Amino acid sequence: MATAPSVSYSMTVRLEVPASGTAVSQLTTAVESSGGSVTGLDVTASGHEKLRIDVTIAATSTAHADEIVEKLRGIEGVSLGKVSDRTFLMHLGGKIEMSSKHPIRNRDDLSMVYTPGVARVCQAIADNPEDARRLTIKRNSVAVVTDGSAVLGLGNIGPKAALPVMEGKAALFKRFAGIDAWPICLDTQDSDAIVEIVKAIAPGFAGINLEDISAPRCFEIEARLREAVDIPVFHDDQHGTAIVVLAALTNALRVVGKKIEDVRVVMSGAGAAGTAILKLLNAAGVRHAVVADIHGVVHSGREDLVSADPDSPLRWIADNTNPDGVTGTLREAVRGADVFIGVSAPNVLSGEDVAAMADDAIVFALANPDPEVDPAIARQTAAVVATGRSDFPNQINNVLVFPGVFRGLLDAQSRTVNTDMMLAAAGALADVVHDDELNANYIIPSVFNDKVAGAVAGAVREAAKPVTGTTAV
Amino acid sequence: MATAPSVSYSMTVRLEVPASGTAVSQLTTAVESSGGSVTGLDVTASGHEKLRIDVTIAATSTAHADEIVEKLRGIEGVSLGKVSDRTFLMHLGGKIEMSSKHPIRNRDDLSMVYTPGVARVCQAIADNPEDARRLTIKRNSVAVVTDGSAVLGLGNIGPKAALPVMEGKAALFKRFAGIDAWPICLDTQDSDAIVEIVKAIAPGFAGINLEDISAPRCFEIEARLREAVDIPVFHDDQHGTAIVVLAALTNALRVVGKKIEDVRVVMSGAGAAGTAILKLLNAAGVRHAVVADIHGVVHSGREDLVSADPDSPLRWIADNTNPDGVTGTLREAVRGADVFIGVSAPNVLSGEDVAAMADDAIVFALANPDPEVDPAIARQTAAVVATGRSDFPNQINNVLVFPGVFRGLLDAQSRTVNTDMMLAAAGALADVVHDDELNANYIIPSVFNDKVAGAVAGAVREAAKPVTGTTAV
Repeated sequence: MATAPSVSYSMTVRLEVPASGTAVSQLTTAVESSGGSVTGLDVTASGHEKLRIDVTIAATSTAHADEIVEKLRGIEGVSLGKVSDRTFLMHLGGKIEMSSKHPIRNRDDLSMVYTPGVARVCQAIADNPEDARRLTIKRNSVAVVTDGSAVLGLGNIGPKAALPVMEGKAALFKRFAGIDAWPICLDTQDSDAIVEIVKAIAPGFAGINLEDISAPRCFEIEARLREAVDIPVFHDDQHGTAIVVLAALTNALRVVGKKIEDVRVVMSGAGAAGTAILKLLNAAGVRHAVVADIHGVVHSGREDLVSADPDSPLRWIADNTNPDGVTGTLREAVRGADVFIGVSAPNVLSGEDVAAMADDAIVFALANPDPEVDPAIARQTAAVVATGRSDFPNQINNVLVFPGVFRGLLDAQSRTVNTDMMLAAAGALADVVHDDELNANYIIPSVFNDKVAGAVAGAVREAAKPVTGTTAV
Repeated sequence: MATAPSVSYSMTVRLEVPASGTAVSQLTTAVESSGGSVTGLDVTASGHEKLRIDVTIAATSTAHADEIVEKLRGIEGVSLGKVSDRTFLMHLGGKIEMSSKHPIRNRDDLSMVYTPGVARVCQAIADNPEDARRLTIKRNSVAVVTDGSAVLGLGNIGPKAALPVMEGKAALFKRFAGIDAWPICLDTQDSDAIVEIVKAIAPGFAGINLEDISAPRCFEIEARLREAVDIPVFHDDQHGTAIVVLAALTNALRVVGKKIEDVRVVMSGAGAAGTAILKLLNAAGVRHAVVADIHGVVHSGREDLVSADPDSPLRWIADNTNPDGVTGTLREAVRGADVFIGVSAPNVLSGEDVAAMADDAIVFALANPDPEVDPAIARQTAAVVATGRSDFPNQINNVLVFPGVFRGLLDAQSRTVNTDMMLAAAGALADVVHDDELNANYIIPSVFNDKVAGAVAGAVREAAKPVTGTTAV
């Protein structure tokens, strides 16, 4: 499928061109004929002979960007200066910082922010530990914890290379929910060690967001941490994804007029996201789900499952899906299905496979950047199509969920996060799309819809009340 | 000794008083006759009958503040409203926050700060891990790590109650050196666990500031961490204090015209700070130091030391001080000494003890808030007196050191911090006081002297160069 030039492959190229003649128009023509897009053109110095021009160009990939630069170099009379990658420029020195809320101008300020005044505040918390939520950053802080074992689609690139993602996540927490998050990138991939470390750092935070930790370790780490700490632990790759998918599915079913109890759901992918989606869909009422992994449809009789550890995630899937004992391949299973949800790999389905689904089929092809089936082709026969990409309608994006979920948890001073809270979050997110807005190309709001985080937060806060026994603050 | 009213015990009291009559002047008289100080008086509502007034009052202690409030309550016609503690107000919701350096206004911003653009930055770091210092917050981040075992003078109050100090420290890092620090308060006091945890979180930081960890555990934790991680580890309670003391002593010796090699130094206190001061003084050339703890002068023959662990800090002191085999009490040892340094407990020396020191004696009485000897009395016979308090000249305050030290370490991308760097920091701090400024009441600059952090940072950066092999950035 064609990819549009993207600002995430955007560069600024400094050029010198002859002041007279057609060099400038040749520049834009060269960029556009190469499939790039000129998004800015500034003359930064001008003389009788020469112009210095900074051209900002969006490309589709790094290779494409290089290609465009070569094309520019080839234009008669043009000399090429510095090429700056806008994304890299934005990352120089990191994307987040720590700020003080109070100016420290003089000794009086110092004596309240720090010693000796701070001692009385410490003593108050020592006397009543719950006051930490009132008198410290704990109230509004989330640790974004990773071991760098499954970063985006890049795999096990380690804690340092994971840092840009965690910083970005922290920036989004602030932007969408006013939360102060800080990245904690761990130099260990031992589950026991990760549990001990997160347990130990918990006092300074009101929530833990686990991020980009590989399956199946992520299941065990999360489950053990939920037992061990008195603040909510949320693995966004699992639960954030599950909540957005359920919200999108809820609205897609509204579009096609089917009930969640009745639909046949086929899922491709049995990893962290797939398992979490399945659990939440079950809790939301789905009764007919079938999951396929790389070995085909998961069923209790499958050879690799007969002897599997009874606590293994795949065993859980076998025991909790596929009530009709479907066997065979993903393609066979998808025939006649109402809903396909892909959290797996590119191009596992063809247009024919989608065409063979039930009438008014729903296709969520979430593999990124290349979906399980070309969404344009799927849309020829399916009623509703969603992807993880920002260049198609209906983007399934966790940014819709995690800021609001944590805002709600923090405001309720919740000590946990449970399925009821997640269902509430999904319901609130779905409801942001009003009946008069709902259609096949708008089942989920934009991440910049400013009602989203508040709606999700409110629903989670309400759902957390019975657990925390607190009222909203 | 008399204590002046302090803003760190400052409160705002809301009162209603009759509009006519002398009630308002009675208010200020009542505060002042109780030893308090009115620092602000605002009429916040006015009517024919009544005035509502917010009076801001500095007291000397919590008990004193309560006493003043009672005095106000007793004034005829006055009714008392809310009493707000200014220090507590400043702590509500915490003192620091996380901020994003870039606005996230639209999808283009999002695609560079987060996915998909961020993936290229992650990949670049995976390919070249050193790039983490260029493309992430690692370059400028310090973890402020505590286990809450020795917080200020409050003792073992635990990680949550320690958080206000760590937040304050982070705020000072930013204010004085532009460093992004984040508090990590650990729910464990097991040395092995602390070492493992700090090792694990190191990838996201360029330095570790250990804070308020009790002795002797702090020695072992620091020593093991220095071996284990590739970023500098600095225990501020030890080394920050040691550097300021050495700087102050250097200038005090300039005032009295004595040489560091020649002076007899007597120290009270053999804890974390005392041991670190001693090590740095030895490195700076001190040859005649004697240390006393609660059991008297430390010497190799002392009963509790004969069988002590050869690696124990006290054993180290016995082996590296007291070359002349002094025995007995602190008071005996201090007789004829040139320098007294107290990092121990209130009132261990009297005016007579100070008077019995050598001519032109130097007294650093650093116990806080109550010094080893009343500084006003010590000053009657000693040539130079310094304390840890902000209400006497010559305040020995770590804020003079840790921001600049870390700024220098981070700028040099240093992987360690060593004695040479600390000596350089002390020298630079001492040199901020020019010859024409130097006198017995000004041996050390104010924490708000804006030359301090830069001078210390520059010296540390230069000293770090031979170790890191980098040039200043």
